Amino acid sequence: MTKLRSYVQGSWHTAPDEGRALHDAVTGTEVARLSSTGIDFAAALEHGRRVGGPALRELTFHQRAALLKALGQYLREHREELYAVSAQTGATPFDSRFDVDGGIGVLLAYASKGRRELPNDTVYVDGAVEPLGRGGTFVGQHICTSLRGVAVQINAFNFPVWGPLEKLAPAFLAGVPSLIKPASPTAFLTAKLIELIVASGLLPEGTMQFVAGGVGDLFDHLTEQDTVAFTGSASTAARLRTHPVIVNRAVRFTAEADSLNLSILGPDATPGTPEFDLYVAQLVAEMTVKAGQKCTAIRRAFVPERQLDAVVDAVSARLARTTVGNPLTEGVRMGALASLEQREEVRRSVKALAEAGRIVLGDPERVEVVDADPERGAFVAPILLVSDPDRAEPHQVEAFGPVSTVLPYHDAAHVIELAARGQGSLTGSVVTADPAFARTIVLGVAPWHGRLLVLNERDGKESTGHGSPLPALVHGGPGRAGGGEEMGGIRGVLHHMQRTAVQADPDTLTAITGRWVPGSQRHETLETEGVHPFRKHLEQLRIGDTIVAGPRTVTQEDVEHFAEFTGDTFYAHMDERAAAANPLFGERVAHGYLVVSLAAGLFVDPDPGPVLANFGVDNLRFLTPVKFGDELTVTLTCKQLTPRDTAGYGEVRWDADVTRQDGESVARYDVLTLVAKKEA
Amino acid sequence: MTKLRSYVQGSWHTAPDEGRALHDAVTGTEVARLSSTGIDFAAALEHGRRVGGPALRELTFHQRAALLKALGQYLREHREELYAVSAQTGATPFDSRFDVDGGIGVLLAYASKGRRELPNDTVYVDGAVEPLGRGGTFVGQHICTSLRGVAVQINAFNFPVWGPLEKLAPAFLAGVPSLIKPASPTAFLTAKLIELIVASGLLPEGTMQFVAGGVGDLFDHLTEQDTVAFTGSASTAARLRTHPVIVNRAVRFTAEADSLNLSILGPDATPGTPEFDLYVAQLVAEMTVKAGQKCTAIRRAFVPERQLDAVVDAVSARLARTTVGNPLTEGVRMGALASLEQREEVRRSVKALAEAGRIVLGDPERVEVVDADPERGAFVAPILLVSDPDRAEPHQVEAFGPVSTVLPYHDAAHVIELAARGQGSLTGSVVTADPAFARTIVLGVAPWHGRLLVLNERDGKESTGHGSPLPALVHGGPGRAGGGEEMGGIRGVLHHMQRTAVQADPDTLTAITGRWVPGSQRHETLETEGVHPFRKHLEQLRIGDTIVAGPRTVTQEDVEHFAEFTGDTFYAHMDERAAAANPLFGERVAHGYLVVSLAAGLFVDPDPGPVLANFGVDNLRFLTPVKFGDELTVTLTCKQLTPRDTAGYGEVRWDADVTRQDGESVARYDVLTLVAKKEA
Repeated sequence: MTKLRSYVQGSWHTAPDEGRALHDAVTGTEVARLSSTGIDFAAALEHGRRVGGPALRELTFHQRAALLKALGQYLREHREELYAVSAQTGATPFDSRFDVDGGIGVLLAYASKGRRELPNDTVYVDGAVEPLGRGGTFVGQHICTSLRGVAVQINAFNFPVWGPLEKLAPAFLAGVPSLIKPASPTAFLTAKLIELIVASGLLPEGTMQFVAGGVGDLFDHLTEQDTVAFTGSASTAARLRTHPVIVNRAVRFTAEADSLNLSILGPDATPGTPEFDLYVAQLVAEMTVKAGQKCTAIRRAFVPERQLDAVVDAVSARLARTTVGNPLTEGVRMGALASLEQREEVRRSVKALAEAGRIVLGDPERVEVVDADPERGAFVAPILLVSDPDRAEPHQVEAFGPVSTVLPYHDAAHVIELAARGQGSLTGSVVTADPAFARTIVLGVAPWHGRLLVLNERDGKESTGHGSPLPALVHGGPGRAGGGEEMGGIRGVLHHMQRTAVQADPDTLTAITGRWVPGSQRHETLETEGVHPFRKHLEQLRIGDTIVAGPRTVTQEDVEHFAEFTGDTFYAHMDERAAAANPLFGERVAHGYLVVSLAAGLFVDPDPGPVLANFGVDNLRFLTPVKFGDELTVTLTCKQLTPRDTAGYGEVRWDADVTRQDGESVARYDVLTLVAKKEA
Repeated sequence: MTKLRSYVQGSWHTAPDEGRALHDAVTGTEVARLSSTGIDFAAALEHGRRVGGPALRELTFHQRAALLKALGQYLREHREELYAVSAQTGATPFDSRFDVDGGIGVLLAYASKGRRELPNDTVYVDGAVEPLGRGGTFVGQHICTSLRGVAVQINAFNFPVWGPLEKLAPAFLAGVPSLIKPASPTAFLTAKLIELIVASGLLPEGTMQFVAGGVGDLFDHLTEQDTVAFTGSASTAARLRTHPVIVNRAVRFTAEADSLNLSILGPDATPGTPEFDLYVAQLVAEMTVKAGQKCTAIRRAFVPERQLDAVVDAVSARLARTTVGNPLTEGVRMGALASLEQREEVRRSVKALAEAGRIVLGDPERVEVVDADPERGAFVAPILLVSDPDRAEPHQVEAFGPVSTVLPYHDAAHVIELAARGQGSLTGSVVTADPAFARTIVLGVAPWHGRLLVLNERDGKESTGHGSPLPALVHGGPGRAGGGEEMGGIRGVLHHMQRTAVQADPDTLTAITGRWVPGSQRHETLETEGVHPFRKHLEQLRIGDTIVAGPRTVTQEDVEHFAEFTGDTFYAHMDERAAAANPLFGERVAHGYLVVSLAAGLFVDPDPGPVLANFGVDNLRFLTPVKFGDELTVTLTCKQLTPRDTAGYGEVRWDADVTRQDGESVARYDVLTLVAKKEA
């Protein structure tokens, strides 16, 4: 009898009691026992808050990202160990890769996004500086800081590896420790994952805890600094969501529940078109991958009325060829459900669906299996139904297995109205080559969806498919789907941070955010330190370091010369009469590109030095036209420093303000440079 | 007997029964009766969904913004009528302006943000295009679409005008109709506001409904497309949040509850400093404005131990001079609480607070009033307490009136720890001239706060103060403050929209979002229509219209000439040996500004025409160094059109892609132009 161990407060915990028996989904034999008896949940939460949280908050976003990357690589090296256990959940090798490699992919994607889209800092600045007074002495900006609690993650049985990892990655990047609770039937696979994570030694102590078994009185000890992310049934979500502590302390609670996801065949996608084939192939894949146990799987297959028979025939033909059985046996395409209880649940749901329509393929009580016992293993045949779309059941009853219902529709308005009857879904797809139809459907059903895929011949080869949540995109949906949102790139990180509006004078705001805010003090280093900021290495640069250079008079000759040289003879620069007629200028003006070119000529320090390159410009706005005879001065101020932990340089963002003789800004922008470290 | 009327389903409704009596807070006389008996709430919601929603969704964000602006202006013209009624709620003229002008300000701010920060369209594109495959045929982007339900808004009694308007404005801009329910004690003022709104005739039918009285069975009829925004007590929030329909259909529910907001005096702000005076003045203002009935008011006044007496003396002295009485009487600084019930509530809370400390000023049972009956009017004296900060009460008991507790602290770590005992607040302030102390406090307490103000001599003149939520900043806080978020500029609009990840091929994504996505079809109009895109007026331009121009060879002479002309003699362009040593280049390269200048020379059509100006450049990235002899081609593609309803032109955003002879992109950016309308 293998007892699954929990990992709490920095050590392994084995329950003193026998616990619940978990079974191999294929053979029905017991594989492990599950119990969390003896865990002090209050202490576990405190351990996360007192040990894990501070350890994470010591690290910058980039450092946390580097750990996620290392963990992803470590798990990739050990993934065969996970595949081996995964087969016992009923998963085919393909299913296991979906779960295991998918989860590792989320870690690596968050590692990459963290380095590219987050600062090398612990505070995230959200949105622009908001001027709050005319004088410029009072400004506002939003910052996001790490919650000081624990991210409690309650996972579903269908993705024992991907589920925990897609929840851990954004929380970890946010600086919030995780407490992971797996669903019972497949907890032995998550336990194997946790063993690997702990063995890797990569995650700082307290940043990841694991409860094998029930959560006991854990909810009683939550605070407003903790978060709960739940994936599973709507009824459990409702029970947890109304826990008095969740309600009274406004604990952030996000739920992701199964939903009646749809796939719509476009009227253009008639038999013989690539889109018809894509629709059929995708529906079959969604029904059979993971034996249909995906919260994103297609439950409602909407097809134009006249294509009903063609779709049913094509899908049935392919499903009939799907070999069910022992997932490790060569040629088997579909394994078992996760448990016998799940099979009972699927059979009950199919019965309800069949009463509203008819089964056109498959028998919920009978299945031919290869290399396994059809009664001891949790096998079920793929089942296709057809139903009247005006019946309630196909929009409300979900059979969480290889089961879909084909529903005929008249036209776009009709299918949009039918889509809404699902009362909120995680995902939907439209298979069409017609962008106009795609637009109508997407904008019509978007309010009920977290994700929508348009599939056709153009993207079919690269498409990751209807059922695959991606780390860059939000996962979650309104209403029946739980009303939650996970991932979505950096959005998922911010779910674990508090957004706070900060109001202050510019100098104080600069001190708080670590980014130079217009109106803050500038340090003209050439004056005070005798050194041009371009001569400073990355470590020597300070926020606020400034070079003021100029003036440079812009003459008519300059403008004409620039026009001739570049070829930019736009009338506003060259044609006196036309420029006078222009409502914005009234006379000839200098090229904007000339202004920024001259500004660079003023602020650049030409000699070889630590500045390696100007790699870009952001938010350039020409604020006031530059006329002949105007004298330009540029003020360049070090605004943000982003050292790269893995390179001999970092990014430096400069605020550039080009003014004319009366002090008015004529152009404002950010200059982006790469600057070498002294110690590279 | 004046019965307040509801406004539902396009007409006024007067309840058949007597209803609840509402009283003048100053005189105690009855001013109106309140009852919602007879309203069909299911029908009201359906009216919003079937009539109001579609009417709003017909309009673009800019058109909705224009209506909000007109409404703001209309209400400003009629504000005297609101002031007159406001006095009956106990408000002084200053208080009334805070409520009335503040609410109008939110309308105007959202009108302005809507025009500046939202597209002239009905779909909001959220975030960047995400590449989902290497081949570029499969991409993702998030869109936000209007929820198809009703925004149910349940307001608090303390801001009968600002409250409804700050909830209506973002919902309206999002394209979602509002159903407004005022708090009972001051419902007569909100009813007056609604009368004005209806009389203005500005809002399309069904986009604003008003329920004077209880919400009956309204919650039973909510769906996942509706939203509920509640401001009021934590206990009511908890009851509403756990309503079965809210829970089971995952209805978006946001709560804003009172909290134990803090204000921290910095150790640098000793008596005699401007910051000490600002701290004292702000605390007195927060206690007395609206008689302290602000959910953002300061309840916990943290001061360095050694300044305890000085603060208590200074605040007491100023409070002792605060004249309480009839708010319309000259010289009165503080009016009445909203009702006698509120006074009882305040007295109860003060008693609990006093048990944990001591009252240093004021008597909850006695108050001297000017020009009013102290028993019939809901008057209470300002009350200052001092308490041991280690007692629980000052961090938990809120007296919702002119009541604050002064709490001594040792150092920054101590006050950060004490701050957290409030378990989440709407707002806090730190009064200090020291940016380092401000940073420590702000980053230390931010996870418990929705908004934080740093006040000092530098921003003191322009500061809008601790207690004022601003439309550009989020309002709401974690934990005890309800866990909700309102306003925050466009963030508040998105609360009423569904974010959906769309995955598609680039052409389909372009069709859905109305913005050109890289990889989509281009229409070289010079080839197909014989016209350069710069010769097209705004109405004639189509997304995807393209000009391809070049090649232009970049020579060593060009680079040297440009260097000399602009003064930009940076070594990477001019010094062969230094450029060779640069890890990114290896040889001399062209200036980035030269590349974009030459590109403009290629794509510009010089003759006078509809293109009025290039007003900016966004997201310019130099992707590959340009070396001597490289041949540049530029492809400029119309990416987004933003017609201005109030101007003879609009903004056109172009995708610029500069490539070299092998097709590699060397620079990529957005060019922003103003283009005239044909019919201006």
